[in-house]
Amino acid sequence: MAIWLLLLFLLSPLLSSSTTTAKITHLFPSSIIHPEQLKISLATKTTNKLYKEKFYTQILDHFNYNPQSYHTFQQRYLINSKYWGGANNNSPIFVYTGNEGDIEWFAQNTGFMFETAPHFKALLVFIEHRFYGKSMPYGGNKVIAYSNSTTLGYLSSTQALADYATLIVDLKKNLTATDSPVVVFGGSYGGMLAAWFRLKYPHVAVGALASSAPILNFDNITSPFSFNNIITQDFRSESEKCYKVIKRSWQEIDETAAKPGGLEILRKSFRICKNYISAGSLKSWLGTAYVYTAMTDYPTPSNFLNPLPAYPVKQMCKAIDDPKTGNNTLEKLYGAANIYYNYTGDAKCFDLNDDSDPHGLGGWTWQACTEMILLTDGNTEESIFPASNYSYNDRLEFCKEKYNIEPRPSWVPMEFGAHHIHRVLKRFGSNIIFFNGLRDPWSGGGVLKDISKSVVAIVAKEGAHHVDLRFSTSEDPEWLKHARKREIHIISKWLSQYYRTLDDSP
Amino acid sequence: MAIWLLLLFLLSPLLSSSTTTAKITHLFPSSIIHPEQLKISLATKTTNKLYKEKFYTQILDHFNYNPQSYHTFQQRYLINSKYWGGANNNSPIFVYTGNEGDIEWFAQNTGFMFETAPHFKALLVFIEHRFYGKSMPYGGNKVIAYSNSTTLGYLSSTQALADYATLIVDLKKNLTATDSPVVVFGGSYGGMLAAWFRLKYPHVAVGALASSAPILNFDNITSPFSFNNIITQDFRSESEKCYKVIKRSWQEIDETAAKPGGLEILRKSFRICKNYISAGSLKSWLGTAYVYTAMTDYPTPSNFLNPLPAYPVKQMCKAIDDPKTGNNTLEKLYGAANIYYNYTGDAKCFDLNDDSDPHGLGGWTWQACTEMILLTDGNTEESIFPASNYSYNDRLEFCKEKYNIEPRPSWVPMEFGAHHIHRVLKRFGSNIIFFNGLRDPWSGGGVLKDISKSVVAIVAKEGAHHVDLRFSTSEDPEWLKHARKREIHIISKWLSQYYRTLDDSP
Repeated sequence: MAIWLLLLFLLSPLLSSSTTTAKITHLFPSSIIHPEQLKISLATKTTNKLYKEKFYTQILDHFNYNPQSYHTFQQRYLINSKYWGGANNNSPIFVYTGNEGDIEWFAQNTGFMFETAPHFKALLVFIEHRFYGKSMPYGGNKVIAYSNSTTLGYLSSTQALADYATLIVDLKKNLTATDSPVVVFGGSYGGMLAAWFRLKYPHVAVGALASSAPILNFDNITSPFSFNNIITQDFRSESEKCYKVIKRSWQEIDETAAKPGGLEILRKSFRICKNYISAGSLKSWLGTAYVYTAMTDYPTPSNFLNPLPAYPVKQMCKAIDDPKTGNNTLEKLYGAANIYYNYTGDAKCFDLNDDSDPHGLGGWTWQACTEMILLTDGNTEESIFPASNYSYNDRLEFCKEKYNIEPRPSWVPMEFGAHHIHRVLKRFGSNIIFFNGLRDPWSGGGVLKDISKSVVAIVAKEGAHHVDLRFSTSEDPEWLKHARKREIHIISKWLSQYYRTLDDSP
Repeated sequence: MAIWLLLLFLLSPLLSSSTTTAKITHLFPSSIIHPEQLKISLATKTTNKLYKEKFYTQILDHFNYNPQSYHTFQQRYLINSKYWGGANNNSPIFVYTGNEGDIEWFAQNTGFMFETAPHFKALLVFIEHRFYGKSMPYGGNKVIAYSNSTTLGYLSSTQALADYATLIVDLKKNLTATDSPVVVFGGSYGGMLAAWFRLKYPHVAVGALASSAPILNFDNITSPFSFNNIITQDFRSESEKCYKVIKRSWQEIDETAAKPGGLEILRKSFRICKNYISAGSLKSWLGTAYVYTAMTDYPTPSNFLNPLPAYPVKQMCKAIDDPKTGNNTLEKLYGAANIYYNYTGDAKCFDLNDDSDPHGLGGWTWQACTEMILLTDGNTEESIFPASNYSYNDRLEFCKEKYNIEPRPSWVPMEFGAHHIHRVLKRFGSNIIFFNGLRDPWSGGGVLKDISKSVVAIVAKEGAHHVDLRFSTSEDPEWLKHARKREIHIISKWLSQYYRTLDDSP
């Protein structure tokens, strides 16, 4: 999830010299590792085999009845019926509740569903979130859809949930599979949606696997320092020295940049392309690498955000701690950055101005300006990033300037519930798994303790951002195998219980 | 609830000769018993004592973020803190989730809350539904708010529920009573809202008493013949002869009207004022009386829709069966109509054209044209009304003509759940009481069986429309006392359980 949110808001302390607007402009992901090409190779490898692409005529506004609410758009979903036991057997339907990006990307990174489908004889459906990928209102025209707050206004989580409910109910009708149980899956923002979907639409889904879903990261329920504390801890757990090098490096970068010819030194040290450099953009580029590497600190090689080796935080620290680099901080940092930005070794230079968006995540800025007020930008004195307070006002100012709109920070906890969640859900609701990996900076906003017998937390000390949902590999550690096994076991229980109830009430 | 819905849609078979539009025009309540005066007398009797009127700045659109969604309006609520044990004691807050009309009217007819408040030390809050009473968007200007589908568009049940949640959460903050448990109450459409509120906002309300809430009257889950079947049964249970007289009367009215001078005969027979008469309007006027008398067939004198004696259906049938009227059907019907329209005896003549709306229920037409597609207009051969099929198409045509809008009949069951409710809520959700009186025509669409240990049905064979919520009287029968006692007992359990959980998780 975090990509745009992070880029916009997490790293702001790294850019203390720039104005709010300048901050934003230079905070997009930077790399020249040809993400488009990566995407295509993945797509050709998998698309034809894994799923078919379909479209559903979706209503623009579910909650009002103004004439414009009746407008429709084509919502994309991906479907795989290879393993499905069929409507006659009431075989289950596994639905991925799409996040803030191209649904193919999420499907390709949710191997868990493909791998468990044969066991459950499940139909697989991945639904794209409105205003992302090909699911663009206004005739599929992204330029219009994203043009202003009047058109973007319909991009909201409640609308997305109602989209999913409507599509699922209609799809089941069309498949004459009205008695097939639906289980929803999602990771990150998609995991939040999955959990909320089970809570708001229990009549549509019998259960939800919400992976790395920071539903408590609102309204100060989770400390705004938690996110960066966890990143700090991730690096410290690998090497105290590594952590200290990074922690001290921000000042060194500023000092170097301030010297005559300093920017040129920095440019050369980090092989930055000739088009642009500033201390702020460099720090943001490095910060991005640390944040995303911590988030995707998987135990096996991966290619979610960028291609990465197994345990990439360890690898970064290895590069930093490399005795060959001596006391040369810049060389150390360059080694670390290379892990995240250039693991394939193809990069000739790095473009700090790169604002390509291969996974189509741009709409998140709007969501982060309206309802997704996940404050994560606090840094204590101990933080691996420069100490700083978190600031709702920075967000407010940015959003006013960008969209002339004011966030509604209390809306999400008000609508979906977050305060005292253990008290509330102890005797209400059922059948939700909250998976969290404690190395994931988002885990601080997750549900980490069982709430009831059937609203349970699976916590993996060694896990990162929705690692459980990824394709398995032969090198998966035991803790990961165990977490997935437990998830399968729990989902099986939901389904058997559903079938028993179905038999009881014909 | 039913008032506008009924007037618009239930009685259509009685008006077979008129066009759709004509039907609508002439289907408003007809009486000259000075309803405004009645209201005023009630208000002066109760308002000052029972509650204070307050206003809350409410957001127009909770689910979108277009610029117009940020508009606000003043939402009215009534508050009574006389019995409240206070925030320090975490004393409970009882909230009435307002229906489709002036909230004062509902407050004055929900004595149950006032009478139980001292026992529970409860704060009482009655929230008015948006677009009704004084809670009018567009600067409180009803003419603008009701002018077209663009402005009316924001009148929807999901917006109303979000209004209630927002208002309650803010009110609790302002009272520093965030730990006070909230129980929601509602009758009819207000009961539907109360039940849905508990399901969608379990973090805001610990339980709901949903009285006479036909949440299953959608999508053919409940037979569209059920409503009139129950009315038929109500009259038959009093007197088979009475039922037969009414059943045969429709044809006699048509035949009389078709004769030369026939309308004049009808006018005189029913003391209709000189301004207007037609067979259709007369039949509709009579039908209205039967429907509402059945709905409010209370065991004690009442004044909910009109002033009525105890057991008014029995009284109607007594008038019809009166030997003094011999074989004169019109005289018999007049006697019956007098029970409903002129129990006070003040009426000089009756105005079939009367479209006064003393309780401000007009917005229901919009709701019945968008999402509240409660089809109730089927009449079997046995029906007390002329046999007729129910028709979604009639509704569709009417709504297209009136608002240029198409209903979304599957929205409510999709959004709130209605199909297989026993299966769905057996292991999801908790703390809802569904009260239904089986003499209430709406009870056919209610939840009549326990769903789980804490989602329970209280069914009173002898009861009418949300009779349990009314002020008690010294003549209340045992079954009614018993139902209320059970409700109080169950609500007590919810609260003790909440307080125990509160103690467990400080």
